[in-house]
Amino acid sequence: MSVHPNNPALKSWIEVPQNSDFPIQNLPFGIFKTAQSTERVGIRIGDFVIDLKVLFVLGYLENLPFELSDFDNKYLNSLMEKGKKGTRDLRNRISKLLDSNFTDLQKNEHHVGQVLIPIDQVTMCMPVKIGDYTDFYSSREHATNVGTMFRDPANALLPNWLWIPVGYHGRASSVILSGQDIHRPKGQIKPDPNADPIFAPCRNLDFELETAFITFDGKALGDSISTAEAEDYIFGMCLFNDWSARDIQTWEYVPLGPFLAKNFASSISPWIVTMDALEPFKCDGPEQEPKVLSYLEFEGQKSYDINLSVNLQPENGEENLICRSNLKYMYWNMSQQLAHHTVNGCNIKCGDLMGSGTISGPTEDSYGSMLELAWKGTKPLKLSDGTERKFIQDNDTVIMRGYCEKDGVRVGFGEVKAKILPAK
Amino acid sequence: MSVHPNNPALKSWIEVPQNSDFPIQNLPFGIFKTAQSTERVGIRIGDFVIDLKVLFVLGYLENLPFELSDFDNKYLNSLMEKGKKGTRDLRNRISKLLDSNFTDLQKNEHHVGQVLIPIDQVTMCMPVKIGDYTDFYSSREHATNVGTMFRDPANALLPNWLWIPVGYHGRASSVILSGQDIHRPKGQIKPDPNADPIFAPCRNLDFELETAFITFDGKALGDSISTAEAEDYIFGMCLFNDWSARDIQTWEYVPLGPFLAKNFASSISPWIVTMDALEPFKCDGPEQEPKVLSYLEFEGQKSYDINLSVNLQPENGEENLICRSNLKYMYWNMSQQLAHHTVNGCNIKCGDLMGSGTISGPTEDSYGSMLELAWKGTKPLKLSDGTERKFIQDNDTVIMRGYCEKDGVRVGFGEVKAKILPAK
Repeated sequence: MSVHPNNPALKSWIEVPQNSDFPIQNLPFGIFKTAQSTERVGIRIGDFVIDLKVLFVLGYLENLPFELSDFDNKYLNSLMEKGKKGTRDLRNRISKLLDSNFTDLQKNEHHVGQVLIPIDQVTMCMPVKIGDYTDFYSSREHATNVGTMFRDPANALLPNWLWIPVGYHGRASSVILSGQDIHRPKGQIKPDPNADPIFAPCRNLDFELETAFITFDGKALGDSISTAEAEDYIFGMCLFNDWSARDIQTWEYVPLGPFLAKNFASSISPWIVTMDALEPFKCDGPEQEPKVLSYLEFEGQKSYDINLSVNLQPENGEENLICRSNLKYMYWNMSQQLAHHTVNGCNIKCGDLMGSGTISGPTEDSYGSMLELAWKGTKPLKLSDGTERKFIQDNDTVIMRGYCEKDGVRVGFGEVKAKILPAK
Repeated sequence: MSVHPNNPALKSWIEVPQNSDFPIQNLPFGIFKTAQSTERVGIRIGDFVIDLKVLFVLGYLENLPFELSDFDNKYLNSLMEKGKKGTRDLRNRISKLLDSNFTDLQKNEHHVGQVLIPIDQVTMCMPVKIGDYTDFYSSREHATNVGTMFRDPANALLPNWLWIPVGYHGRASSVILSGQDIHRPKGQIKPDPNADPIFAPCRNLDFELETAFITFDGKALGDSISTAEAEDYIFGMCLFNDWSARDIQTWEYVPLGPFLAKNFASSISPWIVTMDALEPFKCDGPEQEPKVLSYLEFEGQKSYDINLSVNLQPENGEENLICRSNLKYMYWNMSQQLAHHTVNGCNIKCGDLMGSGTISGPTEDSYGSMLELAWKGTKPLKLSDGTERKFIQDNDTVIMRGYCEKDGVRVGFGEVKAKILPAK
């Protein structure tokens, strides 16, 4: 008899280092390649990647709704097209194969050698071919901070904010994998409010600490997904850095929203942690007052307790922890976001990416952007090397991490990391 | 020796009805199927479609950089990946095969019977698998009208408008083909400004008269496309109806732009008219004052003289011409739009769709939306059946058409048409 894959008592016969983000209770999906092999689907455990293509070929994935091309693939999309049940059954099968109480794979040393690849021998690749990318704006603290800085502290939240999980469309083509460096964008900025705009490299380059979720295929155009149904349409989550050029944004964003301020790059972490693995870390979200409209009502716990952090690392320097936040602060949960997104009949597809929006917490050290942490440049951050930061400088690296912890089990995301290179 | 495919003197051995949008000088690309065949690439001439898959199989497309799967395909993307030169050579070859002075295909009655399909025997399909969809806001008259209605007539244009080809990201998944009906979207609206918002079907449903262009693969992330290079990255154009729910938009759009007000549906016409076919219809655009920033400067004619019209047809009624406009009114041309879009390093890909924004002209009968034509509901349009319209009613059909004409040659787009069904 198999144990539930999230059971804290579950142990793998593969050694997992203490404090690893990737115990047997996690088993996130990703795409990797090695010096010897092309892109394929992998599952992470400890410091190893399980090669699902080889596992399939060796016959360990029989009686599941997958074929070779689902694993021998540059993206997870084909696998995700099997939906919640198919991907859940797959994770459950892997869990059983790695469970120390089961010997099917464990006992076959030759197979283990083919299937298990040390993490330092793989190159991670973009996990998903993203169809549409939507970004929300769902942290009340973030929206309040921005409103306080740029508008009226007494009326910081715009009138629609407590009614609508505000969102906008982003650029899918420029979503890139953790580790890919980014050139500082150029664009129109208006440093002197009384002079004409100029064309120059961005001066106020910022990160935004976010998580993102990846969808399964949704309903047909014209139909809606309710809050009760929403979780059936979400495959998993990753960390997300929604890079932002604040000075470009300030000048361009009225009246149709941010455009070039965002679409030069957005970075995602390589491992997609399934909603099944995150299930034990569900929690209550903030109270919603005024009462939301009927289509945004929901039952049960729909928020997630995910610890998030941001580190800033200057060139040749050490990491500086500059922010600790948590996804549980998010006012609008993912089920509400998805219900809102489809309430007008908008269709979602397998591989869509939906960002949370900047996740700021209630304290000054939990703000999810430099804009807020350095309060529009008025409170520069002091780094351990004695330098200061109002925004991100050339050759700075920004590293975001995230994990859940409960009953002695830690389920994490690894990291999303990128370095800012000088403008081209 | 072959004649230039745009030469007005060129005649085809296929009969083309007078005033057809599709003479031999056009030759637009699309995807079609028939009762007997699956989706494939076609080229339109007169009232016939040329089956490019069959033409390839019969050996008429030799010495071109294409293979069978480029034509035996659900989308044009594979063909478009051959870039400007490949697709131009292909159109030139078709032009020669259809030229009355060349007998290669013409003389082979059996082949002609296989290759030529009457238009009433085909079903048109989505021509392109759209990657990212961007919409611009490039008509000065439209932006001025909106600013006058909702803000200050004396300062109707926002400060950035004359500096930036303002654009925003739209939803690719809900771009649909002409002929597909659309259910009236539901969403949050705020009919009483002093009361809470309500959830209800949109009351102010509108069209937006636009054209759109389809891109080839662009440069790598981090690189930019100049105005001088832009045309090399554009495959062709179609008609585009950017359906808009004005009441949803008014409530949701601050501060991140339109979202559910737009992403319930956007309709495109099925035939992609190549930029090569449109070359003879280039013209000067509006004077740009103040002088644009250096990266938006351009040389030569970059605007296009394309006549556009909108007809509204009530259920079981006749068509009412409600708008005549022209793409030449557009302040920012497509080369400027593309240069702006990539100036921050944003990458474009094969199959991206970029909308012009509503194309309003200088006169009241040339405004490209109901919002402007009926001036925010204050000047209802009278239809021939005696009814009035402030916005689009259930079971109304909106039909947009477009064509160029010069030296006795008419190159057109056909139409984009959709009916609004009641809310689900």
